[in-house]
Amino acid sequence: MDLKAYLKERKALIDSVLLTYLPPEPEFGKKLYEAVKYSLTVGGKRLRPILCLAGCEIVGGNRNDALTPACAIEMIHTYSLIHDDLPAMDNDTLRRGHPTTWVKFGEATAILAGDALLNRAFEVLADWEFDCNRKVKVISEIARASGMLGMVLGQQCDLDAEGRGDVPLEELLFIHKHKTGRLITASVVSGGITGGGSPEEIDALRRYGDSLGLAFQIIDDVLDVVGDQEKLGKNVGSDLEKGKTTFVTIFGVEKARKMAYEEVERAVEALSIFPAEKREPLEAIARFVVEREY
Amino acid sequence: MDLKAYLKERKALIDSVLLTYLPPEPEFGKKLYEAVKYSLTVGGKRLRPILCLAGCEIVGGNRNDALTPACAIEMIHTYSLIHDDLPAMDNDTLRRGHPTTWVKFGEATAILAGDALLNRAFEVLADWEFDCNRKVKVISEIARASGMLGMVLGQQCDLDAEGRGDVPLEELLFIHKHKTGRLITASVVSGGITGGGSPEEIDALRRYGDSLGLAFQIIDDVLDVVGDQEKLGKNVGSDLEKGKTTFVTIFGVEKARKMAYEEVERAVEALSIFPAEKREPLEAIARFVVEREY
Repeated sequence: MDLKAYLKERKALIDSVLLTYLPPEPEFGKKLYEAVKYSLTVGGKRLRPILCLAGCEIVGGNRNDALTPACAIEMIHTYSLIHDDLPAMDNDTLRRGHPTTWVKFGEATAILAGDALLNRAFEVLADWEFDCNRKVKVISEIARASGMLGMVLGQQCDLDAEGRGDVPLEELLFIHKHKTGRLITASVVSGGITGGGSPEEIDALRRYGDSLGLAFQIIDDVLDVVGDQEKLGKNVGSDLEKGKTTFVTIFGVEKARKMAYEEVERAVEALSIFPAEKREPLEAIARFVVEREY
Repeated sequence: MDLKAYLKERKALIDSVLLTYLPPEPEFGKKLYEAVKYSLTVGGKRLRPILCLAGCEIVGGNRNDALTPACAIEMIHTYSLIHDDLPAMDNDTLRRGHPTTWVKFGEATAILAGDALLNRAFEVLADWEFDCNRKVKVISEIARASGMLGMVLGQQCDLDAEGRGDVPLEELLFIHKHKTGRLITASVVSGGITGGGSPEEIDALRRYGDSLGLAFQIIDDVLDVVGDQEKLGKNVGSDLEKGKTTFVTIFGVEKARKMAYEEVERAVEALSIFPAEKREPLEAIARFVVEREY
């Protein structure tokens, strides 16, 4: 399959509907609305929503059914970037090739824009016209992945580990799994739930997501060392600067890359219960994740 | 009725279950968990969850059914306090008589603790074992009230208005309605939805909540000028210091207090469709809100 065309088409689909999930512009407080819109539209690969649509299709669902959870997940991903970039957190000024939200709108509005996106994600999920039981399962899956057992916890652990030279592999894996892995897994799994996947299919998608998420984060570590700032759209070398333990500091670039490839093979293997022709997109996405330069 | 005993008993009930809605302590990142627990347990009147239980009972429901939305709302209220207190926002150091979360745990962890509580609220709502349709209506009601059409928008407007001497009444009403009003309304309304209230009953509770929320905020403005720091457990005079327009700066203490009493009468009036003996707690709470000294 032509993955490049596939990703382009899917990204365009997400981009064409994402802002329709925002409420109308308010009478007062327009700055909040501007900050939310800016953060949602300054770029990004839309990997998580694309995974959500693909997860829906691989179990035989209609991708359009999954647009709501796909966009909700992109909102949650965007909120997490806004908050992670804050001066009190990672203090990043560049994201997706543009000034970060706090640089452009100030810290207070950036905090609120993140809060607004997180809230809005659950609002559009609750108002989604869809089978009630599946909807609630999707909400639960996403909330668990993004919350204090998921992404938020991962960010806390990441901060705790900063500047410590002695982070053991077990702790690094815990950080990656929570900070990046859980939401990636929730993306493909919530697509699968939306599409009506069987427990076995959901389990396979979960294993796929877990391995893909780890591979993704290992490559993130690699790109922070060998990546091209222009292509990445964010500052490189920031992990080193902050004294972070990463897969590269523990294993070096080559070994880390090899581990990422192994995780991708595990991800692909997890898909084996699906018919070959249905597996193609998720397989191709997994390989793309480790070969990407951005 | 003995409102003091009623509030004490209800607060004790909420306090006895609130922490059971947290997940088990994680292996890493315990600081996040500590910050969340600290923020949830340093006090507070538990007004919103008490309103939620009362909203459930007034329509004939069982208060225990409403414990989950009640605790979710208290989590959302607590998250909003944590974020509002941040240096980039209101820069408050004292809350409920204790150091604010960012003073105690640092800014980064305070941001994450707020995020964690907001996420967790939706997680416990999604996992709540209850009628699917009512549950989704409650999630929608709460998300709308706390999000970019509700509390978060109100906080943005509040920040925008700071230091401007020229805030018109229309804008001040918009701020109060969103920053404080919406979540108070959602508290009593989500209780009513949980208890199976009819559309007319839900509408009455909504009018009650809207008036109560406004009265509450007017009295907040009053207490910031005439209140006792000890009783309030937070710094007084901070509105003046920040050059905020409030009901007191526009109307003076006496007129503002009178307006709050008028709103309370409107709130009580909205309850008239319910049998007299069932109205008592919500009526008493409304009167308490304007007579409180803390």
